[in-house]
Amino acid sequence: MSTTVLEPLARVRIVVDCMGGDHGPAITLPACRAFLARHADVELTLVGTSEALAPAASWTRCRRVTASEVVTMDDPVEVALRRKRDSSMRVAIAQLKADAELPAHVCVSAGNTGALMAVARYLLKTVEGIDRPAIATVMPNRRDRFTTVLDLGANVDCTPEHLLQFAVMGSALVTAVEGRADPTVGLLNIGEEAIKGSETIKRAAELLRWAAAGGHLSFHGNVEGNDIFKGTTDVVVCDGFVGNVLLKTSEGLASMLSEFIRQEFTRTPLARLAALAALPVLRRFKSRVDPRRYNGAALLGLRGLVFKSHGSADAFAFEHALGRAYDAARNRLLERVHDRIAATLAALPVEGVAGGDGLADRRVA
Amino acid sequence: MSTTVLEPLARVRIVVDCMGGDHGPAITLPACRAFLARHADVELTLVGTSEALAPAASWTRCRRVTASEVVTMDDPVEVALRRKRDSSMRVAIAQLKADAELPAHVCVSAGNTGALMAVARYLLKTVEGIDRPAIATVMPNRRDRFTTVLDLGANVDCTPEHLLQFAVMGSALVTAVEGRADPTVGLLNIGEEAIKGSETIKRAAELLRWAAAGGHLSFHGNVEGNDIFKGTTDVVVCDGFVGNVLLKTSEGLASMLSEFIRQEFTRTPLARLAALAALPVLRRFKSRVDPRRYNGAALLGLRGLVFKSHGSADAFAFEHALGRAYDAARNRLLERVHDRIAATLAALPVEGVAGGDGLADRRVA
Repeated sequence: MSTTVLEPLARVRIVVDCMGGDHGPAITLPACRAFLARHADVELTLVGTSEALAPAASWTRCRRVTASEVVTMDDPVEVALRRKRDSSMRVAIAQLKADAELPAHVCVSAGNTGALMAVARYLLKTVEGIDRPAIATVMPNRRDRFTTVLDLGANVDCTPEHLLQFAVMGSALVTAVEGRADPTVGLLNIGEEAIKGSETIKRAAELLRWAAAGGHLSFHGNVEGNDIFKGTTDVVVCDGFVGNVLLKTSEGLASMLSEFIRQEFTRTPLARLAALAALPVLRRFKSRVDPRRYNGAALLGLRGLVFKSHGSADAFAFEHALGRAYDAARNRLLERVHDRIAATLAALPVEGVAGGDGLADRRVA
Repeated sequence: MSTTVLEPLARVRIVVDCMGGDHGPAITLPACRAFLARHADVELTLVGTSEALAPAASWTRCRRVTASEVVTMDDPVEVALRRKRDSSMRVAIAQLKADAELPAHVCVSAGNTGALMAVARYLLKTVEGIDRPAIATVMPNRRDRFTTVLDLGANVDCTPEHLLQFAVMGSALVTAVEGRADPTVGLLNIGEEAIKGSETIKRAAELLRWAAAGGHLSFHGNVEGNDIFKGTTDVVVCDGFVGNVLLKTSEGLASMLSEFIRQEFTRTPLARLAALAALPVLRRFKSRVDPRRYNGAALLGLRGLVFKSHGSADAFAFEHALGRAYDAARNRLLERVHDRIAATLAALPVEGVAGGDGLADRRVA
């Protein structure tokens, strides 16, 4: 919808928190090495302890920045924020700032989500017009594409204005990473009819319709939980509580079903034989829904691009997170979010869409 | 936890709205006939047009009550409530009332959920101490048992007190239908830690801890979306918006995965051969997660038992809904809900737990 043409970056500098996640450098370093080999236009800044980064000493297009501390997966936000001031996570995010020696375009970490969001928010601040950053991930759909869902848990109570901001940011993300010029947005609700849902949802729908009428996004209307997997829209917007529940529910269901399949195919000797015959088919199925292929959630709304890998990611999965971060940075997601939010807010008839519920009330005709 | 011993009913009278659902009598009648044959202690009251019920004229333990109208799956609540006063749905629910000629113990309908809830609420009223009825369904879990989840969409905005009421009603349901004496309850949240979630959730957790301390239910603590499928607790409590989203999301994901399995097993001639070899195993898997086996959602908190079958149910699925309704009625779910709610409310230190948020505030030590 934006008419601004943003040329892709010729070189993309990715800063990697190599110590984050359940496995740290054991998986981040091999993933970084493979990624470097595959992308000639990438420069990496690896952050970690000097011992951990030693194996990368001779790599080309790669610099190392040492950090003496590590934020663990169990560290409370306060520890990451106030105590471990020389953590790899914090040092990595700081590399995004304009005053860094060689500023990076995007940061990737598999560290704990709460700490990552808090440190990123503290160091980078939010984009003007964004009250709260959001976490966006992708889920596979029946069209063999991805549905981008946000927020995934950063924001428990959301106003209609927050949901509008999520919609704009999610659209920018899909354009940058999935290459879709005019992504459609669905508002997650408990029925397609406009009269359904809470007051917040109804007012959010009004704001979204208004933004769509002004050409700021492509609003499909209400969608339901099953539409995520149908691929009805490119983006699905919801508050962080609902988003987190639907993500965990989906993970739990998928995991139960694959466990049941495994159990049935190993129950009897005959079943094991059938498994052998079906192995190539089962492998194809597994790879089609492999969550490692869509690893890499975006922290949106900050003055710097941060991608979060799953903590339990292996090198294959971590490389996919690097890939999503690369696409986002290369296609200038940061500027896209900034431009789209600015345009949407500037077109709002009442000043200060951010915060408060007043606007929506005033907007209802 | 209740010390009252409730003897099972010797005879169970089930009233069936035979016209409800996508297929009406074509599936409800065969299901009823099979169910009658399997349960010698059951008497049925079939409600529908006289033509539709004609095939049942000669059945034993079966009476017919005619209704001239049918609530369609698309009828708005207002139509069901005010215009179609002689609908099979309404006439069926009315058979639960004490002033009916031969009052039934439980009603089963595959009619549209909104209309069913509205008509049931209008005719039956809520149990004393219950602000809002809830819809409870079961989902399969890794322990090869069922997890009961409520609310599924009847209540969009819930107070902590509503969530407490859902927990008590859900516990009674599991005791009656699943035969578990002391079911555990989890509060759906976005993290297991007590500090997570919205203010409503935190206060609900306090109320649930208090109720558990008083012996009114068995509160496990916070659970996450994936715990539903792990079977961490027997009951999972959430507001209707979240419950509806997680149900639809689960249905959508399961449907996508089974479609992907089908596609992979038919992609090439070799894959088709593998499918042939794997057929018995795939069938076992399919039957293990067959949603027809857990058809039958309970409308809880009304002065009468109503079960809702999926609208698209076939005879096999509808018979399962009859089975759940039968178990609930036979094990006197109505009295269990009434007794447990009364006991919980009576033990509350502040009068009038129903409505408002004030109580929870006062209860926080």
